[in-house]
Amino acid sequence: MRRTLSCLLLAGSTVFPILALAQPTELQARAEQLARQAQAESLAYDIVESLTTEVGPRLAGSEAEARARDWAVAKFRELGFRNVRIEPFALPVWERGREIAEIVAPFPQALTITALGGSVATGEEGVSGEVLAVASVAELEATPAEALKGRIVFVDEVMTRTQDGSGYGVAAAKRRLAAYLAAEKGALAVLIRSVGTSSHRFAHAGQMRRVTEPGDDPGVPAAALAAPDADQLQRILGRGEPVRMRLVLTPRTRAEGTSGNVVAEIPGHHAADEIVLVGAHLDSWDLGTGAVDDGAGVAIVTAAAKYQMDALKGGPQRTLRVVLFGAEEVGLAGAKAYAERHADELGNHVAALESDFGADRIWRFDTGASEATLAAAQALGVPLRGFGVGPGNNNARGGPDLKYVREAGVPVFTLLQSGWDYFDLHHTADDTLDKVDPEALAQNVAVYTAVLYQLLNSEVTFR
Amino acid sequence: MRRTLSCLLLAGSTVFPILALAQPTELQARAEQLARQAQAESLAYDIVESLTTEVGPRLAGSEAEARARDWAVAKFRELGFRNVRIEPFALPVWERGREIAEIVAPFPQALTITALGGSVATGEEGVSGEVLAVASVAELEATPAEALKGRIVFVDEVMTRTQDGSGYGVAAAKRRLAAYLAAEKGALAVLIRSVGTSSHRFAHAGQMRRVTEPGDDPGVPAAALAAPDADQLQRILGRGEPVRMRLVLTPRTRAEGTSGNVVAEIPGHHAADEIVLVGAHLDSWDLGTGAVDDGAGVAIVTAAAKYQMDALKGGPQRTLRVVLFGAEEVGLAGAKAYAERHADELGNHVAALESDFGADRIWRFDTGASEATLAAAQALGVPLRGFGVGPGNNNARGGPDLKYVREAGVPVFTLLQSGWDYFDLHHTADDTLDKVDPEALAQNVAVYTAVLYQLLNSEVTFR
Repeated sequence: MRRTLSCLLLAGSTVFPILALAQPTELQARAEQLARQAQAESLAYDIVESLTTEVGPRLAGSEAEARARDWAVAKFRELGFRNVRIEPFALPVWERGREIAEIVAPFPQALTITALGGSVATGEEGVSGEVLAVASVAELEATPAEALKGRIVFVDEVMTRTQDGSGYGVAAAKRRLAAYLAAEKGALAVLIRSVGTSSHRFAHAGQMRRVTEPGDDPGVPAAALAAPDADQLQRILGRGEPVRMRLVLTPRTRAEGTSGNVVAEIPGHHAADEIVLVGAHLDSWDLGTGAVDDGAGVAIVTAAAKYQMDALKGGPQRTLRVVLFGAEEVGLAGAKAYAERHADELGNHVAALESDFGADRIWRFDTGASEATLAAAQALGVPLRGFGVGPGNNNARGGPDLKYVREAGVPVFTLLQSGWDYFDLHHTADDTLDKVDPEALAQNVAVYTAVLYQLLNSEVTFR
Repeated sequence: MRRTLSCLLLAGSTVFPILALAQPTELQARAEQLARQAQAESLAYDIVESLTTEVGPRLAGSEAEARARDWAVAKFRELGFRNVRIEPFALPVWERGREIAEIVAPFPQALTITALGGSVATGEEGVSGEVLAVASVAELEATPAEALKGRIVFVDEVMTRTQDGSGYGVAAAKRRLAAYLAAEKGALAVLIRSVGTSSHRFAHAGQMRRVTEPGDDPGVPAAALAAPDADQLQRILGRGEPVRMRLVLTPRTRAEGTSGNVVAEIPGHHAADEIVLVGAHLDSWDLGTGAVDDGAGVAIVTAAAKYQMDALKGGPQRTLRVVLFGAEEVGLAGAKAYAERHADELGNHVAALESDFGADRIWRFDTGASEATLAAAQALGVPLRGFGVGPGNNNARGGPDLKYVREAGVPVFTLLQSGWDYFDLHHTADDTLDKVDPEALAQNVAVYTAVLYQLLNSEVTFR
């Protein structure tokens, strides 16, 4: 206990580098021990196997997502969690229809596409027009309307592969914006090169910017081409003849649907009103079974939370709340619903983490702490070193579903996974269980276990 | 010339190992030199790029395959080949329709499938039934009819990955036979685990055994599941509850269609009636653009043949005939048509080769020579050593489209490519140009160039 105290004293100062060299505190030592035990278990793999097999794809607002909530409630109860409940919320539900893209001339052939989330339909007969390629959203913005009118616009921007996933936000801009920019200029439809880094023939789903106001332009029909098909279209355009395409997309939007967050807790024994939130999202895109996005996250946080139950005699000091968010993929609807429903309680949220970046190993620990508590926050990373996790920065975002709680002042932490291969699978039909490496998954569980243990049993608040 | 003569003398004996150590003959030296020049050229890549871009998928008997023939005629003429012609033949044409496989209970979700070539349709409404899994064709044969009646049979046999492709024939048995065995026993439909080695979510197309007699049982509707989906179905079956599926397949067969072989020649100057045949097949399955199967082969043999034109002053001594076979994928229809049409001429075929195993490097040279000419045949491999090609056996099959000419006594040779990765792409939607490695393709062209040069300008017949 003396060592824990000295840690806390040090934590208030700014001499963090000394900590890394110092003997671990008792809290750190126990966190690492618990993490080693967690790493040897297979619970997380069993969870992601169960979710992806027994539910499969689970699009936001669908009947399958409702089944996923029931699955989660049963799983939490089976594992001994308390206060297990569904917190429902309403949302419009977009559903994919038929998807056909054909080059009509000069070289007739089918291309592999998938509609972007939120896209309007072309009608059953589809639309036909000449293709105009632009290299980027910026070029689309700069192209005069007369060049785009009646055309199918092809935005051909390649995503950069990075370990930290920083290529994604840049590349996703075309997905978010192209349909609306094209509509403004009178285009018929939009095709984008798939966001993501897969070299295989998988088109990448994903949400466009949400149209929230009744008067907003819904954009033109929009779809993503698989990378080999984007290459093919460029080669065909490169022959110099006019290229005509036919595009059929028949998605539908139901105005009134339901999603929900699933919440489970391990009540704290000493400071039950202080909440440590750990989350992942339960919904997935409809093409794959959502194993890496975000079945893995569901598994990691659920298993790491479960290991807190008996970690100290009587369980954790603070309350651990697991939140499996609904409808993340279509615009963080569950995240918003959680922040609104729990607005009064957010002041008691000591810390929040989310696992939503696949199933590869964690390599970096980013903090999002106040200056006064920065050293204590960074000290949470000490037991992670043996698992290959190095210190990062203090600009943690904490995961997409933590946007609103972070904005409300809750300190967030990021256990950053390697994203090198993540976008080979993300939002594609190929996101299936066989892509999850059980050893990498177990490393994630170990690291979350160590961090949660410290957060739950520390006396520091990081606000 | 003396060295060439001594080679030929040695070739008649059985002391081949000495040859490998001896100085190369003039013919061998020139073959290697020509191959080095060929390896530096990009013609083959340009050809496979052109075929896959300007035609794309080209299913046997389709309008696209007809366009491929026109493309080939134009390409051969542009390259200076002589006697360029299409040799048409009739065949029934099978065309894919809609393809849906859904688990209805206990865990509703869609699975990725593709209909097997030749499959009958389920009707627009599809068929529904309980799934029964068997581990192999042998187990299907051994299962009593009462266990299969009204069921959807799932034949779950995994293909072995091998360098020489030997796993394919074994694995393809379930594709060839399952629909008929299942029909005999009253099953509703058949699903097989995809032939091939892809771990991605691609179903593997391919022909069932052809039904040729009017009275033959056409079998039940049959489709292949992508490997991740076969895994998923096994996991779901493993839960122990009855698994119900719905299957919709709407393929159609037109009784009267047309395919054709495209033939081009470089007439010989000294022994024009002696024909060296080099082939590949022009058709492809409809899911991909047939880059590795068999656009690469078309490119390799066309480029290697082109390099023979000016290889000696006045061109080759013997006639080189390039045959791009039609309708290989649906049962060697073009191969049969060629052997029938040219039956009178097959006695003049000195040797035959086909490139139809992808775009990876050649690693082995197999001969199919008489005992008397074996050493001379093996000597053709000497200039290949510098390209990483080692000696193989004397049981060469020569490629699928050489079946009938081989059976008619034409000596065949196999320049065996590495098939390690071939079945990751073969017959899937992922068989696209980006999977062709230009350097490996150039090695193929070099090796074919060296062998063709020797065959065209040798005085040995290998019958």
